[in-house]
Amino acid sequence: VALEDKIPWLAGAPRGGRWLVGVSGGADSVALLHLLVRNGFSDLVVCHLDHRLRGRESTADAGFVRRLAGKLGVACEIGCCDVRVRMSEHKESMETAARNARLEFFARCAAKSGCHRVLLAHHADDQAETVLWNLLRGSHGLRGMRQDQRIRVGDTELQLVRPLLDVRHAELVAWLEAQRLDWREDASNLEPVAVRNRLRNEVFPLLTEISGRDAVLPFVRGAADAAQREECEADALDQANLLDPQGRLHLGALRKLTPDLQRAGLRAFLVAAGIPAIDRALLQRAAGLLDPAGPASVNLSGGKRLRRRAGRIWIDCQAGGL
Amino acid sequence: VALEDKIPWLAGAPRGGRWLVGVSGGADSVALLHLLVRNGFSDLVVCHLDHRLRGRESTADAGFVRRLAGKLGVACEIGCCDVRVRMSEHKESMETAARNARLEFFARCAAKSGCHRVLLAHHADDQAETVLWNLLRGSHGLRGMRQDQRIRVGDTELQLVRPLLDVRHAELVAWLEAQRLDWREDASNLEPVAVRNRLRNEVFPLLTEISGRDAVLPFVRGAADAAQREECEADALDQANLLDPQGRLHLGALRKLTPDLQRAGLRAFLVAAGIPAIDRALLQRAAGLLDPAGPASVNLSGGKRLRRRAGRIWIDCQAGGL
Repeated sequence: VALEDKIPWLAGAPRGGRWLVGVSGGADSVALLHLLVRNGFSDLVVCHLDHRLRGRESTADAGFVRRLAGKLGVACEIGCCDVRVRMSEHKESMETAARNARLEFFARCAAKSGCHRVLLAHHADDQAETVLWNLLRGSHGLRGMRQDQRIRVGDTELQLVRPLLDVRHAELVAWLEAQRLDWREDASNLEPVAVRNRLRNEVFPLLTEISGRDAVLPFVRGAADAAQREECEADALDQANLLDPQGRLHLGALRKLTPDLQRAGLRAFLVAAGIPAIDRALLQRAAGLLDPAGPASVNLSGGKRLRRRAGRIWIDCQAGGL
Repeated sequence: VALEDKIPWLAGAPRGGRWLVGVSGGADSVALLHLLVRNGFSDLVVCHLDHRLRGRESTADAGFVRRLAGKLGVACEIGCCDVRVRMSEHKESMETAARNARLEFFARCAAKSGCHRVLLAHHADDQAETVLWNLLRGSHGLRGMRQDQRIRVGDTELQLVRPLLDVRHAELVAWLEAQRLDWREDASNLEPVAVRNRLRNEVFPLLTEISGRDAVLPFVRGAADAAQREECEADALDQANLLDPQGRLHLGALRKLTPDLQRAGLRAFLVAAGIPAIDRALLQRAAGLLDPAGPASVNLSGGKRLRRRAGRIWIDCQAGGL
């Protein structure tokens, strides 16, 4: 199987428009950039943020990326952010500081280039690690990165696109080697840290050894299935018109849904209201409001409560709440 | 939190009727038996199968269980099966041979006692290992043992009930110790084997160490969520009346469902027809049949195909099929 055949996005995406591409100089993003150019994407803006985390090597990474963009005849934006300074200024972890610095850099590039679509080189190994890590931190299921994600950075809306989520890091390296293409070793290892490295170097090899098959794939596939299910769920909720003009949940519309969608609708409502720590037990209690014979309110954190009255469910502040 | 509070099943289940209880003599099943007796379940039949896997120790396990049942004043059935002989006769792995031998023993006990409900002591650690193992073997999601499962063994229908799926093994041991109750060390370690032991002894401790939190719980909870979702799905499909009197899928009924339920309905239809290897790609193609403008048939393995015609979808054998 050719590498391109494992990336259906490449065949389906419009070649005409402009795309930003995040390129660290490491194997993954360099492979992505070459794949794009070879598949007819010509209006690219290579975006490289120098994180200043590897001293002289960081500068060399930026130089490599600039020369590569020049050779390929595409535009290039090099940004700079001292992540360590940002960490102490914003009291952020290195992971958060590096991610936020990158997103803000992409937002600046988007404003400058008039293009809000950013291609990222996250691959199957990244995805499996993310899924397992999210699970261990309480995601209640197999949740990974989305291939297509819309986020807001300050006033800028970005569309992040990850075409390589089904491709293994080793496949990208093998392809670069077969094509005799260069990359910067370690340039992609900006991202922390202990945890991700231990999942990559200890957990997945151990699982692969024990099961006798590739342990990365099941996590990637499981997340893809879950994402597909969530999209269906979101579509169904959209069509269900759950909110009345005052933004309250319409009990009649909610009762027409399957129990699963009812919970999803309640969850979406609580998330939109900024309610923290929405777990299974809370959703169970909230779903109890649909029973006319059951309690008519459910306590939430912060002195708020979820109430049922006159065919509607909404959130108000409890008398005497904290 | 008292141990009983972590086992909601105990409070809700009818005490009146008879229950079979699988008791190996190990900590988990001994704890289950004591919990049942102390919570008012009196018409119990303790079922112990001597697997003949531990020589003299096996006989001692059986003796321990018989004496325990006697002390508690409940009935006891001791069965015997040389699992190694069964392995070679039936060409089964030790895991399969032991499981089938146990199920057939439960079926015999059910016939003899007129009770088809069997309580089993599988706990949270068992569940997490099962979920991870299923995932690695291709379950496409977090799938574990069901708390309530109906199976057929030969002509006998059994209802397997697992009340301890949310309780940790260590909690059961701690409870037995606090109550000064005895059990047979290693009696529960009949079950194979390398894989389960490596998940238990290597993988989960490693995940717990890396993440700094209990790694068993997320797998148990994820499986519970998935099971709940699947039950909702099954209910919704039941209500959708997808089959016509000839057992064909009713296109009109199918089209009324959400895309997710459509796939679930198609999957259930293919499973019932004995179609193997139903993966995401196949379901995607099958879902394509719902589009009147799309192809009207989808090839299945074994020369079969899924056809759409005159408002129905069904399976037939392809002309010239293998």
